[in-house]
Amino acid sequence: MVLVEPRNPLNIGAAARAMSNFGFLRLRVVQPYEAGYREARSAVGASSVLTNAEEFASVAEAAADCTLVVGTTAVGERELHHRVKALPEAGKIIRRKMASQNVALLFGSERVGLSNDDLSHCHWVLRIPTRQEHRSMNLGQAVAVCMYELARDAKRPLPQGRTTKKAVPAAQLQPATAGDIERISKTLIEALHACGYLTPRSGKTPEEKIRRLLRRHNLTANDADLWLSMIGQMLYRLKNQPPRR
Amino acid sequence: MVLVEPRNPLNIGAAARAMSNFGFLRLRVVQPYEAGYREARSAVGASSVLTNAEEFASVAEAAADCTLVVGTTAVGERELHHRVKALPEAGKIIRRKMASQNVALLFGSERVGLSNDDLSHCHWVLRIPTRQEHRSMNLGQAVAVCMYELARDAKRPLPQGRTTKKAVPAAQLQPATAGDIERISKTLIEALHACGYLTPRSGKTPEEKIRRLLRRHNLTANDADLWLSMIGQMLYRLKNQPPRR
Repeated sequence: MVLVEPRNPLNIGAAARAMSNFGFLRLRVVQPYEAGYREARSAVGASSVLTNAEEFASVAEAAADCTLVVGTTAVGERELHHRVKALPEAGKIIRRKMASQNVALLFGSERVGLSNDDLSHCHWVLRIPTRQEHRSMNLGQAVAVCMYELARDAKRPLPQGRTTKKAVPAAQLQPATAGDIERISKTLIEALHACGYLTPRSGKTPEEKIRRLLRRHNLTANDADLWLSMIGQMLYRLKNQPPRR
Repeated sequence: MVLVEPRNPLNIGAAARAMSNFGFLRLRVVQPYEAGYREARSAVGASSVLTNAEEFASVAEAAADCTLVVGTTAVGERELHHRVKALPEAGKIIRRKMASQNVALLFGSERVGLSNDDLSHCHWVLRIPTRQEHRSMNLGQAVAVCMYELARDAKRPLPQGRTTKKAVPAAQLQPATAGDIERISKTLIEALHACGYLTPRSGKTPEEKIRRLLRRHNLTANDADLWLSMIGQMLYRLKNQPPRR
């Protein structure tokens, strides 16, 4: 990733951080505003991406070893000498290319973006599809969104993070058996009689309704235990005089 | 989108800006750190998303009219009572749901993220797939990435053009709102105290467990009514002397 003439240390730090979050570790910086760049690099918690960044005097030098150079723009209308691709499509192309070659992704300065001269080094330009009425993004956020898209769907089984992690150990996710559900139904129905919600004249219909209800909930074995103990305790108390307070 | 106890005015502003960039205009804020929130709202260039934000005293209230409540986490290992979905998959589900219903997406405070109590209001949790070695993202950047994903591929040619409005589902199949579920949780917890299953010394953990349990069940609005009336009647009887037989 190449930051061209960045100024604000917070933005520089944020850009580097987002790169690190998504596993892009090579940052190049072209003619940064010196004070801001120094401050960003010396900030507490500066990511190693930033401390290892390389500095260049021109976009041409920064992108010299890359076979694809892509600019970024918020505007989309201004400098239409370039093909503009929306990020989801652009991401696909860049990901494919990155698999075997170096790609440079250029971000312009916060105030003016990339100049026509910078853009002249680009094969094409990508735009994050923001809405018409509020197009311009903060630099750190724009970098984060691009890095996310470039890492998205990446086929690198890499650090475990990539897959959807199931939260709970398998044993706890085991579905409740029909027997579990029947026990809950029975206990609940008895409790509903004890509290007067059901009466001997209610008939079978409400009981069937309750069974269907419990079945729809896709209870796990653990859920079933929890329900059974809760309802069991209520039933016990309903059938026995409550303690005097 | 719901920001829970945000502190840093720059982050609050950045979050609102990213929402605006991607066309998400309804921001809710739960117990913000007052000074930071005031500063963010009065900043030059604060987006209308921020000036129109609504403030709430609790997550329960902020999400009361939502049928899906999703938390966000960087960690993925800590509070593993929840199913964790990676953002690309989560985005698909949320987009589909948003077409016809209110969805709450919760972001925790910068320092500690969402608490277990906050998470107990969530149906599941999404994680931005950052790399193992550097997981934690800046709040404003995390929001930007999520908003981008939620707007990604959206078939909305026009502002109003959210299209594919699903025919309103049969009343019986309409999902329960977070408010419905909160009412059931409260009633059930009260009943469990009344019957001695819970005591004042039980603390918050069992209550959180019960909220998660109810949320996992994917209750419809009708199911919610049924549970509420059943548990309500048991509670009534538990609190009042049972009739002599």
